[in-house]
Amino acid sequence: MKATRVCDVLEHGAVGERCRVEGWLRSARHSKQRSFFDLVDGSSARGLQLLVSPELENYETELRHLGTGAALRATGELAASPGAGQHLELRVETIEYLAGVESDYPLQKKRHSFEFLRGIAHLRPRTNTIAAVWRVRNAAARAIHDFFQQRGFVWLHTPILTVADAEGAGEMFEVAGAEEFFGQPVRLTVSGQLEAEVGALALGRVYSFGPTFRAENSNTSRHLSEFWMIEPELAFCDLDDLGALAEEFLKAVLRALLEECSEDMAFFDQRIEKGLIARLQHLVESPFERMTYSEALKALQQSGRSFEFPLRWGVDLQSEHERFLCEEFVKRPLIVSDYPAE
Amino acid sequence: MKATRVCDVLEHGAVGERCRVEGWLRSARHSKQRSFFDLVDGSSARGLQLLVSPELENYETELRHLGTGAALRATGELAASPGAGQHLELRVETIEYLAGVESDYPLQKKRHSFEFLRGIAHLRPRTNTIAAVWRVRNAAARAIHDFFQQRGFVWLHTPILTVADAEGAGEMFEVAGAEEFFGQPVRLTVSGQLEAEVGALALGRVYSFGPTFRAENSNTSRHLSEFWMIEPELAFCDLDDLGALAEEFLKAVLRALLEECSEDMAFFDQRIEKGLIARLQHLVESPFERMTYSEALKALQQSGRSFEFPLRWGVDLQSEHERFLCEEFVKRPLIVSDYPAE
Repeated sequence: MKATRVCDVLEHGAVGERCRVEGWLRSARHSKQRSFFDLVDGSSARGLQLLVSPELENYETELRHLGTGAALRATGELAASPGAGQHLELRVETIEYLAGVESDYPLQKKRHSFEFLRGIAHLRPRTNTIAAVWRVRNAAARAIHDFFQQRGFVWLHTPILTVADAEGAGEMFEVAGAEEFFGQPVRLTVSGQLEAEVGALALGRVYSFGPTFRAENSNTSRHLSEFWMIEPELAFCDLDDLGALAEEFLKAVLRALLEECSEDMAFFDQRIEKGLIARLQHLVESPFERMTYSEALKALQQSGRSFEFPLRWGVDLQSEHERFLCEEFVKRPLIVSDYPAE
Repeated sequence: MKATRVCDVLEHGAVGERCRVEGWLRSARHSKQRSFFDLVDGSSARGLQLLVSPELENYETELRHLGTGAALRATGELAASPGAGQHLELRVETIEYLAGVESDYPLQKKRHSFEFLRGIAHLRPRTNTIAAVWRVRNAAARAIHDFFQQRGFVWLHTPILTVADAEGAGEMFEVAGAEEFFGQPVRLTVSGQLEAEVGALALGRVYSFGPTFRAENSNTSRHLSEFWMIEPELAFCDLDDLGALAEEFLKAVLRALLEECSEDMAFFDQRIEKGLIARLQHLVESPFERMTYSEALKALQQSGRSFEFPLRWGVDLQSEHERFLCEEFVKRPLIVSDYPAE
């Protein structure tokens, strides 16, 4: 019998069906009559409850003593679950104990700090939070591709090793010894813009989506040394078209997350950032506001707020200005056009 | 009126329909009664034929003199085309001349060598061959994602900057000055395997698909300094499962190219590699052969061929051996299992 993924069991399984699952023990409870195992396989935030009878032949020798993280293969019959939080459970007929973990396995059924998890990078994807981050990131990446592919954009794999600095987009890492290799100094890209522009002028619509680098040693939430960036480039497109595309894009990606990752997003809403889902729902449902630079400046000047960065016609808008405009003035995303030419 | 892409005009356009197209002039022919423009926009290998009357008001001042590469916006009515190679053409009512090119524009309606094109990297995507490569590469990348996403794999963006050398997979580029930045020497990844293995042991099924590097200064068709690599990792999977997945994967991606890029593939078959389509069709339709290492060795030893690398039990199979087995012995793809342990 082929194994079924836990997400498929929970979504499509029926009472009375026989099935096999493979995964890891997230927690176990033992009573005299039976044990309850919570088995996860990474396909869902939810686990499948296994009902384990002491009559199984390896119960006393193995199953009674399993620790969190043990790898198992279980076969049995699906039954309606009387417990809270699940509608199905597996009445186990056999369990193979495939591999165990050290007795000092550091992940337990409790909240671990991110700092602690940073020290066990090989295990942290097994936590609810990090696994949810990876599933949501995957769904976002898929939605990004779907959005562009459905609109005829060509995905360009723009180079990482480059001599172009994209109009000084940021500090660049340099590759050691590149001169003897390439005949000139080579750095890690800060933007695929140059290649994407070339691509757009041949293929019409392209996007880059790949790793990007900044050699800026700042420990803020703004900059990572390495991150994935999306850069669409379109020929025959004006600023209004581009604003409309940006709005559609953000909404399509967020809508996909809310629909396809509802459990993981509910987990984030509950444990990581209260109000997250309502905020994203609001964004998805609101038409973005449009304003010219001059209108934006006027709104800021008439706000009565004092800002750290002074306001006069010609200055770049700073984060504090953007936040006031979006969060307090128009209360939704805002696209500002007609910036003064540099 | 919004512009329609050339691929959509050719596929869905109907005689009598009014439409607008935007693109670049690939070639022009002039007669006394009219001009014929071949307009491409990168959405298709094919262009749309524009029928341009000398009565248009900018005919003598602009249209008569346009060179290859000029950017145009044309509006008109679709008509049945009497010419060969197309079923529709656009009877132009207005043409806007948006931008021209220098009079020494290097791309002409003739075959350019790849070496020549290498020197004009900003223009070569406008050639039929390179544009087709990009469209086909995009379709392959999309098919790769679709394959894994449909099977519940999570796409991991494994790091480029790394201290891991993936069991010595290849020579690594080093990042200059990384020690003061990261506190230790940092290199460019040769494989996302380590992170993907960690991911698979938490999420069950993952794949990496991103840039990978080799600091090996070899000018062969085998190695690039930078290339995109795909690495699936699965928990609870044996070698037979993995072989089946590899076979399904290759077939799914090639089938997508043959179906979705039929024009570009036909172009490659005609101009770049005769027999390409038949070869790929054969691969898609054949069940892959399976053989153990011992069987493969026996077939090689009994072949009567002389090979450069000597054959005895325990040696790694070399390219010459693999080619003989696939191309001459089983005449289709081959998966060899039960390699001797190292």
